[in-house]
Amino acid sequence: MFNMSDKNKKSLTALGEFGLIARLAKKTFVAKHVVKGIGDDTAVLPLTRKKYLLFSTDLLCEGVHFTKKEDPFLIGRKALACSLSDIAAMGGVATSAVVSVGLPKSCPVHVVDEIYRGINTLARKFKTSIVGGDTVQNKTIIINVAMLGEVEKTKLVLRSGAKTGDQIFVTGPLGRSLTTKKHLLFTPRLNEAAYLVSHVKPNAMIDISDGLAADLGHILEESKKSAVLDEVAIPRMKGASLTDALHDGEDFELVFMLSRKQASKIFMQKHVKVFWIGEIIGQGRGLSLRDAKGKIKKINFKGYKHF
Amino acid sequence: MFNMSDKNKKSLTALGEFGLIARLAKKTFVAKHVVKGIGDDTAVLPLTRKKYLLFSTDLLCEGVHFTKKEDPFLIGRKALACSLSDIAAMGGVATSAVVSVGLPKSCPVHVVDEIYRGINTLARKFKTSIVGGDTVQNKTIIINVAMLGEVEKTKLVLRSGAKTGDQIFVTGPLGRSLTTKKHLLFTPRLNEAAYLVSHVKPNAMIDISDGLAADLGHILEESKKSAVLDEVAIPRMKGASLTDALHDGEDFELVFMLSRKQASKIFMQKHVKVFWIGEIIGQGRGLSLRDAKGKIKKINFKGYKHF
Repeated sequence: MFNMSDKNKKSLTALGEFGLIARLAKKTFVAKHVVKGIGDDTAVLPLTRKKYLLFSTDLLCEGVHFTKKEDPFLIGRKALACSLSDIAAMGGVATSAVVSVGLPKSCPVHVVDEIYRGINTLARKFKTSIVGGDTVQNKTIIINVAMLGEVEKTKLVLRSGAKTGDQIFVTGPLGRSLTTKKHLLFTPRLNEAAYLVSHVKPNAMIDISDGLAADLGHILEESKKSAVLDEVAIPRMKGASLTDALHDGEDFELVFMLSRKQASKIFMQKHVKVFWIGEIIGQGRGLSLRDAKGKIKKINFKGYKHF
Repeated sequence: MFNMSDKNKKSLTALGEFGLIARLAKKTFVAKHVVKGIGDDTAVLPLTRKKYLLFSTDLLCEGVHFTKKEDPFLIGRKALACSLSDIAAMGGVATSAVVSVGLPKSCPVHVVDEIYRGINTLARKFKTSIVGGDTVQNKTIIINVAMLGEVEKTKLVLRSGAKTGDQIFVTGPLGRSLTTKKHLLFTPRLNEAAYLVSHVKPNAMIDISDGLAADLGHILEESKKSAVLDEVAIPRMKGASLTDALHDGEDFELVFMLSRKQASKIFMQKHVKVFWIGEIIGQGRGLSLRDAKGKIKKINFKGYKHF
């Protein structure tokens, strides 16, 4: 299948994950009733007069999202957490999920039990029903979680809604999620998202899976805007450099945009911990960073590279 | 993680796929509003006053469901076809899907393009929107399709509805799907299912993925019934033995049960090709086979073994 005489030598590395997704999105069949297909944290589909249905999928692979040595309970927990984080980023509530698991033949049953215990711990916490699954023999452990959620139409937050003058916030410190194990232990920001969409309604929101710069980059692209971040304002995990905070993946915090009026309200509440990090400006300059001396320099969107 | 000092030495092989799924189903969180969770071809969830939402997931792995040498177009096609077949088995219509793909770094882009062309060919044919996806680097090619469908409440067919005296039918010849490539080339029986639920309303239905005996076994277990199949009536693919027809996996034909009254109608129509194969009897004897001389012997449920 990977014939070296292939005429089209373009590799996945050259294309990158986002290039690949963009390539696919162009060619897919999408019916008219689909509110939002490929290109946000979840798909948005019609549900009722007042609500949308959210639909997402996340594939976790051994060697990429976790190692063989990891606690299987935490692997299962992370699989569900990643999907819950996607639902949070839309301002939604998770309702149900189906779980596909690939397992080596040699995998002891209690390891599988632990993976499922991890999944169920978060399912119970966030009242998300596990309604189906598939199990297949595979060389390595892989877990795919597909999730459904709901959101009131008035509360839906897309990547594409950022406006000039919007203030940018994150829900927690960034960077070093791999070394601190935050990438396994994080609590998806569903409660925070629920508060935000009910009280200050962000104009745009995304969860940070590929790194602050890369994911904020998605918002800037979809919203056709630019942004300036205040270097000293970006909250960092202990020991994280500015580069770590900007480019490490899998923080699973929310980054969101509020109008100045809504931003002023956010400091009056104590329900959600938020950190101001910058401002949306008009199109053209991409993502920039202002240092302590007020000097501004452009930075790259690059995040975690899958290929 | 696969520490050999593990106290619980039970292996997945001993438990088997169905044992594993049953084990999981017991421990999962399921909210009250879920109509049917783990244990049918798809989950059944509330949607509108007149309709249910169907939700399924299917994981296809290199070395299990396809080989590295296979035409990537057919791999992609099969990934969507398996999920469409699950929706068909419930009597439903497929509406949208999300696709997760694991790919080796060395995978040429045109191979990925072909996989997606295969997916989109069937998506277009059955008007199923591809609304989201995930791409991850993995040692081997893996594809997970999670699918949503809809079914009118009055048309929903479960595995659990078979009644004593029901006549058993299949939609096509069975066995040798691997050698004949039917496992890659099959057309999911959505049109046939739509006709059946509108005109004769089966009492129970399932798609044959693990082999006729194994999948009919699921219906017998869920319906708490037994069945006798007529050996000579079971339609076979060219060159397939009776054993092949009973136990080979991935035929992706529908097997369904009709009351005697409905069964009499099925021969009056020309829309769906069906083959009568046997009868549902009361609980107790499991699955039996009647040979040409009228002699009855019990057969095993065993189908394709994933572990």
